[in-house]
Amino acid sequence: MKLHYSPGACSIGIHVILEEIGKPYDLSLVALKDGAQYKPEYMAVNPKSKVPALDRGDGKVLTEFPVIAFWLAKSNPEAGLIPSDFEGEVRCLEMLDYICGTVHPHGFTRQFRPGNFSFREEDHPKSVELGKQNAQKYFDTIEKGWTGGTWLLPSGYSVADAALFFVEYWATRRSGLSLPPHLDAHLKAMLARPAVQRTLAQEGLAA
Amino acid sequence: MKLHYSPGACSIGIHVILEEIGKPYDLSLVALKDGAQYKPEYMAVNPKSKVPALDRGDGKVLTEFPVIAFWLAKSNPEAGLIPSDFEGEVRCLEMLDYICGTVHPHGFTRQFRPGNFSFREEDHPKSVELGKQNAQKYFDTIEKGWTGGTWLLPSGYSVADAALFFVEYWATRRSGLSLPPHLDAHLKAMLARPAVQRTLAQEGLAA
Repeated sequence: MKLHYSPGACSIGIHVILEEIGKPYDLSLVALKDGAQYKPEYMAVNPKSKVPALDRGDGKVLTEFPVIAFWLAKSNPEAGLIPSDFEGEVRCLEMLDYICGTVHPHGFTRQFRPGNFSFREEDHPKSVELGKQNAQKYFDTIEKGWTGGTWLLPSGYSVADAALFFVEYWATRRSGLSLPPHLDAHLKAMLARPAVQRTLAQEGLAA
Repeated sequence: MKLHYSPGACSIGIHVILEEIGKPYDLSLVALKDGAQYKPEYMAVNPKSKVPALDRGDGKVLTEFPVIAFWLAKSNPEAGLIPSDFEGEVRCLEMLDYICGTVHPHGFTRQFRPGNFSFREEDHPKSVELGKQNAQKYFDTIEKGWTGGTWLLPSGYSVADAALFFVEYWATRRSGLSLPPHLDAHLKAMLARPAVQRTLAQEGLAA
């Protein structure tokens, strides 16, 4: 297996999941800042020009964070990374989709790539500000709906925690946002996990 | 069961799935154009202020298009709306996430709600144009990766077709775009399905 990633991008969540599973895998750097995702070599891997993409080693590549996370969790049941009941599985997917499809693009992409959300450079600060406001609103929605203990789902640690981790990490390390209480405690608990510490070290990021 | 929808919104894909399943359900109108999604009554149903949301009739509401589609398909296996093997299920989810997480927001929301992507009204036409270009690019990606026959997945008709339908419908009915050959044939095949015809009629939309 090989994970196509960029340091500190949302692919870090899949990287954490691979470290939790503990089976051998390779990393392949896609330097988003140099536009490597648009080069023919990478577009042959993932025509959508995005990370993460997972080369499963069976000649097939899987894309979309929630789906890679679901596939890894279901294919490695011994790691216990997804609820074992159908209702739990569905709620896990629902959180993955919310984090990857709403919190990430409308909270953080608006901050990190304001040019995607405003045509004029002088409007970029407005995009950054709106992204921060959105992120805070989305975090509040997650906080209010919190049904877990330390972890996001009541059944315990799951791949949804690895997704929540990457937006919490961005919020506190890159955006200067503070987190509501459950999320703040969640981020601390994530940073204490050896799999997360190994992932950050491998990507050259501060804990 | 009750589907919270807005006529012609992406919720139409879930509406199609409910018609395919054929069990009784109710419709609850959320008039997006009047901002009904931000009113307290609806935010009590879905704090994310989005459609579709599915009240399952067990006191629980499910959100996120791909997850509602997955839950409906898996809970109604007799309808045959998702591949029966795990790999097929994963590829179905991958298409759902691509359509709902990329094609919809970056293709069509950019066209339909340009104010979300440009702060100045005089820049709105640029947002509309970029949305059209993106949509065309995403459709080309789906066309090139087409592995099915008439339907999107090689295993046959699935909930992924109901998702592809709503973006194809928008492209041709609202955006004046033309579709690549597989998608053009797919839209025609969708429009010939009684479930799709009933859905359009119920939402007051032209076939």
